Amino acid sequence: MMVVEMADGSTKRDLDRVCESLAGAGRGYRVAPGGGRSYVMSADVSRAADSEPFKGLPGVRRVQVTSCCHPLASREIGGASRPVELAPGLWIGGGEPVIMAGPCAVENRTQLMSTARGVRRAGAHVLRGGAFKPRSHPYAFQGLGSEGIALLKEARAATGLPVITEVMSPDEAEWVAPHIDILQVGTRNMQNYSLLRTLGGLDRPVLLKRGMSATVEEWLQAAEYILAGGNERVILCERGIRSFDRNTRNTLDLSVVPLVKSMTHLPVVVDPSHATGRRELVLPMSMAALAAGADGLLVEVHASPETALCDGPQSLTLDDFAGLMERTSRLASVLREEEPSWLMPVAR
Amino acid sequence: MMVVEMADGSTKRDLDRVCESLAGAGRGYRVAPGGGRSYVMSADVSRAADSEPFKGLPGVRRVQVTSCCHPLASREIGGASRPVELAPGLWIGGGEPVIMAGPCAVENRTQLMSTARGVRRAGAHVLRGGAFKPRSHPYAFQGLGSEGIALLKEARAATGLPVITEVMSPDEAEWVAPHIDILQVGTRNMQNYSLLRTLGGLDRPVLLKRGMSATVEEWLQAAEYILAGGNERVILCERGIRSFDRNTRNTLDLSVVPLVKSMTHLPVVVDPSHATGRRELVLPMSMAALAAGADGLLVEVHASPETALCDGPQSLTLDDFAGLMERTSRLASVLREEEPSWLMPVAR
Amino acid sequence: MMVVEMADGSTKRDLDRVCESLAGAGRGYRVAPGGGRSYVMSADVSRAADSEPFKGLPGVRRVQVTSCCHPLASREIGGASRPVELAPGLWIGGGEPVIMAGPCAVENRTQLMSTARGVRRAGAHVLRGGAFKPRSHPYAFQGLGSEGIALLKEARAATGLPVITEVMSPDEAEWVAPHIDILQVGTRNMQNYSLLRTLGGLDRPVLLKRGMSATVEEWLQAAEYILAGGNERVILCERGIRSFDRNTRNTLDLSVVPLVKSMTHLPVVVDPSHATGRRELVLPMSMAALAAGADGLLVEVHASPETALCDGPQSLTLDDFAGLMERTSRLASVLREEEPSWLMPVAR
Amino acid sequence: MMVVEMADGSTKRDLDRVCESLAGAGRGYRVAPGGGRSYVMSADVSRAADSEPFKGLPGVRRVQVTSCCHPLASREIGGASRPVELAPGLWIGGGEPVIMAGPCAVENRTQLMSTARGVRRAGAHVLRGGAFKPRSHPYAFQGLGSEGIALLKEARAATGLPVITEVMSPDEAEWVAPHIDILQVGTRNMQNYSLLRTLGGLDRPVLLKRGMSATVEEWLQAAEYILAGGNERVILCERGIRSFDRNTRNTLDLSVVPLVKSMTHLPVVVDPSHATGRRELVLPMSMAALAAGADGLLVEVHASPETALCDGPQSLTLDDFAGLMERTSRLASVLREEEPSWLMPVAR
Repeated sequence: MMVVEMADGSTKRDLDRVCESLAGAGRGYRVAPGGGRSYVMSADVSRAADSEPFKGLPGVRRVQVTSCCHPLASREIGGASRPVELAPGLWIGGGEPVIMAGPCAVENRTQLMSTARGVRRAGAHVLRGGAFKPRSHPYAFQGLGSEGIALLKEARAATGLPVITEVMSPDEAEWVAPHIDILQVGTRNMQNYSLLRTLGGLDRPVLLKRGMSATVEEWLQAAEYILAGGNERVILCERGIRSFDRNTRNTLDLSVVPLVKSMTHLPVVVDPSHATGRRELVLPMSMAALAAGADGLLVEVHASPETALCDGPQSLTLDDFAGLMERTSRLASVLREEEPSWLMPVAR
Repeated sequence: MMVVEMADGSTKRDLDRVCESLAGAGRGYRVAPGGGRSYVMSADVSRAADSEPFKGLPGVRRVQVTSCCHPLASREIGGASRPVELAPGLWIGGGEPVIMAGPCAVENRTQLMSTARGVRRAGAHVLRGGAFKPRSHPYAFQGLGSEGIALLKEARAATGLPVITEVMSPDEAEWVAPHIDILQVGTRNMQNYSLLRTLGGLDRPVLLKRGMSATVEEWLQAAEYILAGGNERVILCERGIRSFDRNTRNTLDLSVVPLVKSMTHLPVVVDPSHATGRRELVLPMSMAALAAGADGLLVEVHASPETALCDGPQSLTLDDFAGLMERTSRLASVLREEEPSWLMPVAR
Repeated sequence: MMVVEMADGSTKRDLDRVCESLAGAGRGYRVAPGGGRSYVMSADVSRAADSEPFKGLPGVRRVQVTSCCHPLASREIGGASRPVELAPGLWIGGGEPVIMAGPCAVENRTQLMSTARGVRRAGAHVLRGGAFKPRSHPYAFQGLGSEGIALLKEARAATGLPVITEVMSPDEAEWVAPHIDILQVGTRNMQNYSLLRTLGGLDRPVLLKRGMSATVEEWLQAAEYILAGGNERVILCERGIRSFDRNTRNTLDLSVVPLVKSMTHLPVVVDPSHATGRRELVLPMSMAALAAGADGLLVEVHASPETALCDGPQSLTLDDFAGLMERTSRLASVLREEEPSWLMPVAR
Repeated sequence: MMVVEMADGSTKRDLDRVCESLAGAGRGYRVAPGGGRSYVMSADVSRAADSEPFKGLPGVRRVQVTSCCHPLASREIGGASRPVELAPGLWIGGGEPVIMAGPCAVENRTQLMSTARGVRRAGAHVLRGGAFKPRSHPYAFQGLGSEGIALLKEARAATGLPVITEVMSPDEAEWVAPHIDILQVGTRNMQNYSLLRTLGGLDRPVLLKRGMSATVEEWLQAAEYILAGGNERVILCERGIRSFDRNTRNTLDLSVVPLVKSMTHLPVVVDPSHATGRRELVLPMSMAALAAGADGLLVEVHASPETALCDGPQSLTLDDFAGLMERTSRLASVLREEEPSWLMPVAR
């Protein structure tokens, strides 16, 4: 595909001229406002020769033809790794792992507040909690909805922790965005393109979970849908893929952490809770995730897992979580002393 | 879970009493208008003893406790196989296979009309064509949108064939429904519950493709989301699952045809085009699908596959398709003479 | 790789010269006596230019450079489809499906004889039965061993049916070969190269099951190991691949039937019993397999499945099997009337 | 199944009496000399009541009925984790990670010696190198065979490192055992039961790689085949499973490290080279493996990877490997300070 990058001082008229030139040649294109700049993307131009005429057009900074199908997400075109601001003052991807923790679902005030205070005390950076739950079982608890959002705001006020919650449709995303710090796309919706497009237009960081059986390319293309709408704050989340063994809920594919970090500039976090589905595996897999270079963790914690309305067996108790924070902190401090380069394999 | 089936003459008051009784006990529930009847479903009641009190309530016809998590879709509660009306006078699931054919995407009037006339001539029953395309590649052709819908209506008028098209979001579904005969949910949206809930409230048959790595239970639970909204016209479509071999685009899982037909009353069709991704495998897999008991086929056909904007390599030419219709018809006529019972394995 | 085909009248000296020429250039090679001819294969020659010198050597009939890594198994070099003789007068791959049926394991004389007579009566062509069983469970019944072989010979004498049985090691293969008509390689041993090499030197047809997660190329390369030893009688058997859904024991990958038949000249049979693991799915999947173009079936049948020492739930009763024979025969007679070409997709 | 454990001072006659008692009741059994003791295993006894009579027999220490199908490998019956002696004075499973490194295949003296000296210098504990190579490609380099074994002995003499090499058949295992310190079973042969049985009778530690698509239970049952022969020195090796994404050669399933360690007493090592197939991912995945609790690593290293006859792209250079040793040592020293308990999840 061809990527036309407009210069900083270029005008609307310059941009239109590029578009008209493509339209005139019967070639599809899309204008993508990535990183404060405008790009014109055309999947229909694949030969370098066909891109030549665009180089001379006014306001054009650079023209590239690439086989990469997620250019804004790539290091090649999108540039080097850079931290993403999750909430005022809280950055991810800058070296210090960011730990997001909380219950699978917001169930009621007591549950949420006790869990929020507990994870805060243990040192978590972000509070997670689902208000809208995508449940396979059509008659299972589907979340508290707007009441859950209100409780999350209350928990944020009480603890000072920014909050992350999942949205499942364009309407939900627009409604939730003003209230919540970070929006999450679940594994079932990784290729819900209507939702991704909406998120591309919102001013909120988006944590994009990998689809249950998504290839790395499909995952980065999903991220590109958001980036192409102008929202640069995308964080990737590996949460296990579907495989044949039933001892764990999913198969945590940790190799994608260094792999994806070599392909893209986006931060990558790991969800060891959904990946394994088993409480006793969450700590070792958290350690492994950080050792593999992950920028953060998304961990399910519940003040009393045995009464949880969903995902109890994979939820840590507050004590478990305090232990996890201690151990991962010690590990992180050792890893930090390493040359960062080892965590970043050379580009492909 | 517990399924409370209300009697035919039951009143709103009777229904409310069941719900209040559950709410009073702190148990979640959902009212589902399946099959002209009302059901109250509660995933929180799992012991037969706990269901006893509901049996005596006025207006209650039957109370069942089941381990099945898709009761309306099941034969156990939802009842025996029954044909579904796709369009006035066209039924699927009644013995005669229904063949849906057409291009992957509606590209322009000429392409659509020539393909529509061709598949009509060869004997197809339904015209397929995508107006809104869920593309992994964010900059590839995404469909003609509303213009595509208009062209599909024109093709229907010209050929008399009912049309099926994919919708990707609740808004799209509501907007498209009045114009199109059958709505399709693609593999990427099988667990897009906002979309499924919307479709449950529309008066249109829904063809629900199996998710790329969905288990049979997850697929039937997705169908249940639609059925629970009161829309009984759900058709399942097997289109290949994701596996490790790359010689075919996906792995066609034909065993699910007899399996799912033994578990549910819903018709099942097969999409050999996406399953294999290779034109030369579409005919043998169509034959195999019918021999396995499929109620119909969804086949990609293009008047000139070599110029197709998407899925050219898996699209049949009009001649190929005419051959497929001839051969599958001969096969169907032999299969029809069999006792139907062999196609219907005993319930599990 | 380079394939040097020796001419019919070529001498040992001619062959040696080709080998010396490769050895002198530091290139690995293997002499393979495929199809009554000698071939010299070298994976180390990949450029056409490097193959030129070999064309002029005495006794050389043809020199080809190919990217195919299973040349003798390929249609390109190995030639067109041809029937394989399973036992005197019984050919597979000639149009008429060959049905192999019998118990998973030989358990005792009564069980084997009653089952053998039953499948004979219903019209089976070959009796199957395991004497050496590869069991995952280390303490489960592992087969009767040599006593099982003796019983199989007795059953052959009584019914006139040729017999097929599995072998698991080179020694076993050599010991069993004189007694049994067809040797079977199980899914766990598809890449047991010591075993495959031994089978390449024996004068017995070999049914090679696909490995649990083998790609098509790996499967054909396994066949090549046998062919390269000079044994041309290889039959491929699809028996389901490992996937994520647990409703069936494995996932029957029927698309490989037409796919593999377009790539190779070898007959392909299908084992619907292991593929599904469920008796009620065996008939529909047998129908589907034949409709997809399979050359035969391998079906587990037991005179009293409820007492079977292994695989009872997937074994047909004798009555079930008689029904299967009737229905598949009717289907086969219809398929036979088709132009055979439709079953044979154009080569890739 | 039933596990009858014989007492220390029990006699052959006591053992025979247990066996006769089972045989008399028509129940299968196997005598397994695990851990210096004799066990009688019977898969045919599954009810506690049926095991009662055995408790009173002379020489019987304990009788257990278990649903576990790999009792000697389990913690429940086989006992707590314990180190395994790989070579005189070198133990694995005792806290200090054991690093095995070397080329995929032994190619010639120069290559092996330079690599062996290099990995020795960097601190490796064991030299790996294949003499018999199980290659998918039937005409690719298949290893130097006995010449390779001789070179490995020479390298051991020169460096003092014990050596590990793969064996593929019973004959090979018996022939190789006297020459080599540790025998390896490759992924393709994990269910080659003839090979496993032979290894059970040899006095050599066995590194058992997980099959390409083996479940954890199948893997442990394969280990049980070796243990049941009386060979207690089994080390498990996770090397990636087959999955759908092609960016890595396989999918490293690191969760099995803590999982398997909670189920069994056997040490677990990780092969990051075959798991990823990409040199730049070997270091991060080595770090992750140790952080997850692995007892060691099996790493491909080659003095000049670009000329390697196999697996060059995944082989580390000697410099890469020296870096890996440094970093993993630092990590290991931190992990060692932790309470070991965190690495050992509670039993299931």
